[in-house]
Amino acid sequence: MKNILSMSQFSNQEVYDLIDSAMGFKAGEKSDAGMNKYAMNLFFENSTRTKSSFQVAEMNLGMREIAFDASTSSTTKGETLYDRVKTIESIGASVAVIRHSEDEFYNELLKHDLNIHLINAGDGTGQHPSQSLLDMMTIAEHFGQFEGLKVGIIGDLSHSRVAHSNAEILTRLGAEVSFGGLDSWYTPEFAEIGPHMDVDDLCREMDVVMLLRVQHERLSADENKAFSKEDYFKEFGLDMRRVDMMREDAMIMHPAPVNRGVEIADDVVECDKSYIFKQMQNGVFMRMAMIEAVLKGEDTSDENINTKRQAILR
Amino acid sequence: MKNILSMSQFSNQEVYDLIDSAMGFKAGEKSDAGMNKYAMNLFFENSTRTKSSFQVAEMNLGMREIAFDASTSSTTKGETLYDRVKTIESIGASVAVIRHSEDEFYNELLKHDLNIHLINAGDGTGQHPSQSLLDMMTIAEHFGQFEGLKVGIIGDLSHSRVAHSNAEILTRLGAEVSFGGLDSWYTPEFAEIGPHMDVDDLCREMDVVMLLRVQHERLSADENKAFSKEDYFKEFGLDMRRVDMMREDAMIMHPAPVNRGVEIADDVVECDKSYIFKQMQNGVFMRMAMIEAVLKGEDTSDENINTKRQAILR
Amino acid sequence: MKNILSMSQFSNQEVYDLIDSAMGFKAGEKSDAGMNKYAMNLFFENSTRTKSSFQVAEMNLGMREIAFDASTSSTTKGETLYDRVKTIESIGASVAVIRHSEDEFYNELLKHDLNIHLINAGDGTGQHPSQSLLDMMTIAEHFGQFEGLKVGIIGDLSHSRVAHSNAEILTRLGAEVSFGGLDSWYTPEFAEIGPHMDVDDLCREMDVVMLLRVQHERLSADENKAFSKEDYFKEFGLDMRRVDMMREDAMIMHPAPVNRGVEIADDVVECDKSYIFKQMQNGVFMRMAMIEAVLKGEDTSDENINTKRQAILR
Repeated sequence: MKNILSMSQFSNQEVYDLIDSAMGFKAGEKSDAGMNKYAMNLFFENSTRTKSSFQVAEMNLGMREIAFDASTSSTTKGETLYDRVKTIESIGASVAVIRHSEDEFYNELLKHDLNIHLINAGDGTGQHPSQSLLDMMTIAEHFGQFEGLKVGIIGDLSHSRVAHSNAEILTRLGAEVSFGGLDSWYTPEFAEIGPHMDVDDLCREMDVVMLLRVQHERLSADENKAFSKEDYFKEFGLDMRRVDMMREDAMIMHPAPVNRGVEIADDVVECDKSYIFKQMQNGVFMRMAMIEAVLKGEDTSDENINTKRQAILR
Repeated sequence: MKNILSMSQFSNQEVYDLIDSAMGFKAGEKSDAGMNKYAMNLFFENSTRTKSSFQVAEMNLGMREIAFDASTSSTTKGETLYDRVKTIESIGASVAVIRHSEDEFYNELLKHDLNIHLINAGDGTGQHPSQSLLDMMTIAEHFGQFEGLKVGIIGDLSHSRVAHSNAEILTRLGAEVSFGGLDSWYTPEFAEIGPHMDVDDLCREMDVVMLLRVQHERLSADENKAFSKEDYFKEFGLDMRRVDMMREDAMIMHPAPVNRGVEIADDVVECDKSYIFKQMQNGVFMRMAMIEAVLKGEDTSDENINTKRQAILR
Repeated sequence: MKNILSMSQFSNQEVYDLIDSAMGFKAGEKSDAGMNKYAMNLFFENSTRTKSSFQVAEMNLGMREIAFDASTSSTTKGETLYDRVKTIESIGASVAVIRHSEDEFYNELLKHDLNIHLINAGDGTGQHPSQSLLDMMTIAEHFGQFEGLKVGIIGDLSHSRVAHSNAEILTRLGAEVSFGGLDSWYTPEFAEIGPHMDVDDLCREMDVVMLLRVQHERLSADENKAFSKEDYFKEFGLDMRRVDMMREDAMIMHPAPVNRGVEIADDVVECDKSYIFKQMQNGVFMRMAMIEAVLKGEDTSDENINTKRQAILR
């Protein structure tokens, strides 16, 4: 594949292949697919976690990073995203990992014939493919399959980058997905996929309880007024009482950063059933798999830059 | 050479040599001139493009970068530029690439006996030698010579870092330089070099049309009021109508970032006659040539730091 | 040792060993203790100097840096320091170098079972072990011993990260420490260690005059009003008149950045008796010694991350 932009681009087989490849890296396999190549991580929105994870993945593959600081970038001079990406292609980068506040920012880029691999690290309230894929990897690593798994997603579905794409890919892979959280978050697109349930019931019945960050910065004023953090925790938060209702081998997942005391209790974050930090660990390996896949898939990165040396008349 | 600070320091021969060296890198030649050495890129003004280009050039030569973020730097604690540069020399950097808002910031540094190579990446409204040199390289690559070439520079001459130094070096190398744009920009120093012409005439007669960014942030309030972006585009901007007036083998150049729809039409940026992204590509190779030249030229970077190991009395 | 958090953790022998190791690096010894490992430098307070010095030390040991920009970090999303450190451990970092505005920020981290080496690069008005150690190295390099050395520390003792820990470690190593500066800075904890003296007398009698930065940003409004920069310079600043009072082989030290014309005269910064830039040079070697010590001391960094590869049922 040339680019990784959304989960819907993948066949089930491709998802399995990426998980296989990531598990291979975790088991110690090496790749020099990125040797002597450059990556640039263009994060126009804050995310140390995802950015750092991509950086380590790139370096593990032998790549070098061209530093990018959005706050001092020429975008402040009104440069378009396309011109910026075209520039870093010209400078010699093979891969551009991009996080951007605009939904499907990449559509504008796809109109042009770019000679650089694009990886979407989060677009607006759209997709976050590397998070979805590392979630799938973590589930596959634990349960060995998706068929028949019951997965409950609890939290701010409507503002979450992973809620919709995880629900979709899980369903496609054979799991049954249910939802929890505020009624106003359970929009029709989720109702098509699975039922809305009480959090206690979800905890009792699910194999995987997938929490989402309550993103206060994205809530409407009304929602914020209606629900204090304390209210949220009481009604939807995961505390040890609810953890104890869960099956012995059930998993707790969260894309992090967690809001301790809001959607998750302090002592739940690292309890036995929690795979939260294992998700982060897996993230590096999955991102290695993704970058290797684009670098191997279609070698557009070696533009024939070399020219014959020309004598200059003086 | 120990430092690269302004175009006027170069003999014509040195300019040709740097172009030769850069063309060699573009043709695939390697250099390990920077192996195990450190570079620091001190950009006190925004410029992702130039900074990234220097970073890749450094890494291509085997150098490692010491990260520098002006916004969190000790300069906010009132440290002088000299103390900062002396510090990074002490820490072990061999090369300091500096962009600074003050004209000829380097004069203060030259008063001291610094043991680090300085490269000017843009000083105030002064010089921008790496841009000028990559421009010369791009012209030489296309035309094979400078003698008799007609070059028109259109734009905000008085606020441009490259207008004056490009005009000067082009004249020195045998080209004929003309100018276009607002009358108020055509100051006496440019009048000494070449005529001020109508943009249509420039397009018809020039071998190279070199556009400058209209830097709204540097315009006077009067100039901004007198000329809207639309007015500017109509009178001085390069659109396809004007491109069609140009000779078959003529070049369009621009230091970027471009203002689409101000000094250049959207569809001109990547038209056949445009060398804008090729300039960026060449920029990496020219910066490799520059860094190699200072590292090779005068080896001041290996201060005799090693001391005999001394036993400590306890 | 697993972590380096404060000077009080070290036995005298460990201080000597670190100095030995740093002197070895300065004499050209190599170490690949950090090969293929990652470091993350978490500076929540500004400090280009210390951060750059750690970066070079890490790269000299073969480590790679995971970039961290506090201003765009998830800490702005309310993440705790522990969650941040646990995250970078999960991503694969072996060493976290942390500067934080909170005194003894590391106590919170030590409550958990972290699998990453912590190095304190400055906590609040607490400690700054790498600065203290490089100071000890610079003194040892010059005098060959601490026993009987007279050291005067002049400046804002109460707000300084190094004043107290340097006074303590110097005393422990056999030196005699005296103090100078504003009376209000000479708090009881310093009075227990050594006398408060006039600056002229200190200059005449000391082997080492250790200046501290006058940190206007940390002074009380009262202190700022009482003492202008000019007043301070006149009464406590080190000018050439005072330098001439000093013994032939006496040392002037300063942790930098210096305030030229406040605590030190412009022409004193690089005079023969000044070791200020030598301190910075030594800083890289001492930080190499520190990082090597934690990496070698207790190998917690190789968490058994590898799992057997598991087939996924499809």
